[in-house]
Amino acid sequence: MKALVITDGALNLEERPTPEPAADQVVIEVAGAGVNRADLLQLKGGYAAPPGWPEDVPGLEFSGIVAARGPGCRWIGDGDHVFGIAGGGAHATHLLVPEGLCAPAPDGLDLVSAGGIPEVFVTAFDALVKQAHLKLGERVLIHGAGSGVGTAAVQIVRAVGATSVGTARTPAKLERARELGLDAGVTASDDMAAAIGEVDVVLDLVGGDYLSIDTAVCRPRGRILLVGLLAGAEARLDMGTVLRKRLTVIGTVLRSRPEHEKAAAVADFGRSVVPLLTDGKLRPVIERVVPLDRAEEAYGFVRSNSTFGKVVLSAQV
Amino acid sequence: MKALVITDGALNLEERPTPEPAADQVVIEVAGAGVNRADLLQLKGGYAAPPGWPEDVPGLEFSGIVAARGPGCRWIGDGDHVFGIAGGGAHATHLLVPEGLCAPAPDGLDLVSAGGIPEVFVTAFDALVKQAHLKLGERVLIHGAGSGVGTAAVQIVRAVGATSVGTARTPAKLERARELGLDAGVTASDDMAAAIGEVDVVLDLVGGDYLSIDTAVCRPRGRILLVGLLAGAEARLDMGTVLRKRLTVIGTVLRSRPEHEKAAAVADFGRSVVPLLTDGKLRPVIERVVPLDRAEEAYGFVRSNSTFGKVVLSAQV
Repeated sequence: MKALVITDGALNLEERPTPEPAADQVVIEVAGAGVNRADLLQLKGGYAAPPGWPEDVPGLEFSGIVAARGPGCRWIGDGDHVFGIAGGGAHATHLLVPEGLCAPAPDGLDLVSAGGIPEVFVTAFDALVKQAHLKLGERVLIHGAGSGVGTAAVQIVRAVGATSVGTARTPAKLERARELGLDAGVTASDDMAAAIGEVDVVLDLVGGDYLSIDTAVCRPRGRILLVGLLAGAEARLDMGTVLRKRLTVIGTVLRSRPEHEKAAAVADFGRSVVPLLTDGKLRPVIERVVPLDRAEEAYGFVRSNSTFGKVVLSAQV
Repeated sequence: MKALVITDGALNLEERPTPEPAADQVVIEVAGAGVNRADLLQLKGGYAAPPGWPEDVPGLEFSGIVAARGPGCRWIGDGDHVFGIAGGGAHATHLLVPEGLCAPAPDGLDLVSAGGIPEVFVTAFDALVKQAHLKLGERVLIHGAGSGVGTAAVQIVRAVGATSVGTARTPAKLERARELGLDAGVTASDDMAAAIGEVDVVLDLVGGDYLSIDTAVCRPRGRILLVGLLAGAEARLDMGTVLRKRLTVIGTVLRSRPEHEKAAAVADFGRSVVPLLTDGKLRPVIERVVPLDRAEEAYGFVRSNSTFGKVVLSAQV
């Protein structure tokens, strides 16, 4: 097998021994694997893989075909088309993962593009539905509506029967997000809070000083989900407003969760999100597909913040 | 009836017409009524009563005897001993409240002292059990363990089968909190986080820069309940830690809740807390009882921060 290996801050495609599955593990012949911001952080040396996963191969999600399986597998079969999440190692031609982190991939989806689905749809569904308990008729603010998680969130908000207002760097990104169902869009301005209006839930993929906007625009009992910190990891919190409005601020991240929690999130994804992908009510938003041997280019696209939706590595090199 | 009326920042005991109950309202002949920090804020003009409650009479909790009831009352009877919460007006000889904000007071409790029970036990139970979902075996940090809510929280933590570590201004307060079941105590020092150790839940009655201690000492998936802001209403939030540990920060306050939510909190209190008060597993911590015509003195005790537990006004003047 070939794997994208981080050596001294650089990416190199190297030959590695193809793993053998044990217990409940499967070996996936990777079709596609999304590039996430966590991969960029890991390349810079700032985001180590959790224990039990390849230390030097990035890649947190995958799609592909089951090539081998351990004796403890329960439902997965050789040749099955699956997609799912990993603690690392997905930027390769083959990947060893527990069966519990895989979900069956619908026939109607392009299998390579499907490698850009799991991380953002699991994250958005888990944050909005499982943690924020988003309800029909509520209004959601999405900071970073043109990002991978943002484009998944816009669609999930609509599927729940809620409405959305999104922020993005450029009007062009907001225009494309509107095509996915975003109800209102706001770019950075002097008085963003007034332009946004009142909301019940915030999905904050940006962090930094946006936190003060989040508390200002929330209605009583609002829920603020902190999912990304591109704009900074520290901010002033107006605790008076948090108390008076009885707000909840929740930090969430997928990668560092224990495996049984990841498996629970993937099971929820398989049960609640995949059927909507199958019948076209949700759709992957893929900016572009780049072959694994041009990974630097793909990482560069994500780093540029100019992409709309996902960049996916195609593993067939 | 007589009521403690705020006029130009001063308290005066004045004659007022005794109210008549309508619909599901009852008139309580007040026995005791705790003094809370919200009363001090209201006296300073900073904390207006919610709509529908007396604007100029403080007092958020009461005990007493049912003197009259409206035709829509369902379970309450004339002469019943009850205690409960109010949106204001309890610092008086008589109080008009909805039946739903009353709970039957156990026979074994001194009825005057019982006026210092509802606000702190409703707040601590609601925060720890209903919102933080405190579980057997978890460890709880209580900032302000010698305060009214703190002394209630220490006992509820023990009743749940969890353990507690508390902070307070003085070793003397911590020593008294230990008699209520506090497992460990820490006073202000250079490295409070190290002295506190790891916890699953924080009940923060202090606010201000303690927020940075809260995020530092929480284990993964920890819950931080912001209940009071004595030390300040703004602080820096380390969002990186909130994300990485997947923490939840919840602001909570009782007074501004809509009436149906207050009634739900009182019903929970009646069902879950009152039985433990009845059989002595929880007990009110009353620093002193002061007659209503010496209210300034009682407010001064609370303002001094030197009290342990509650100060209660006795209404029989």
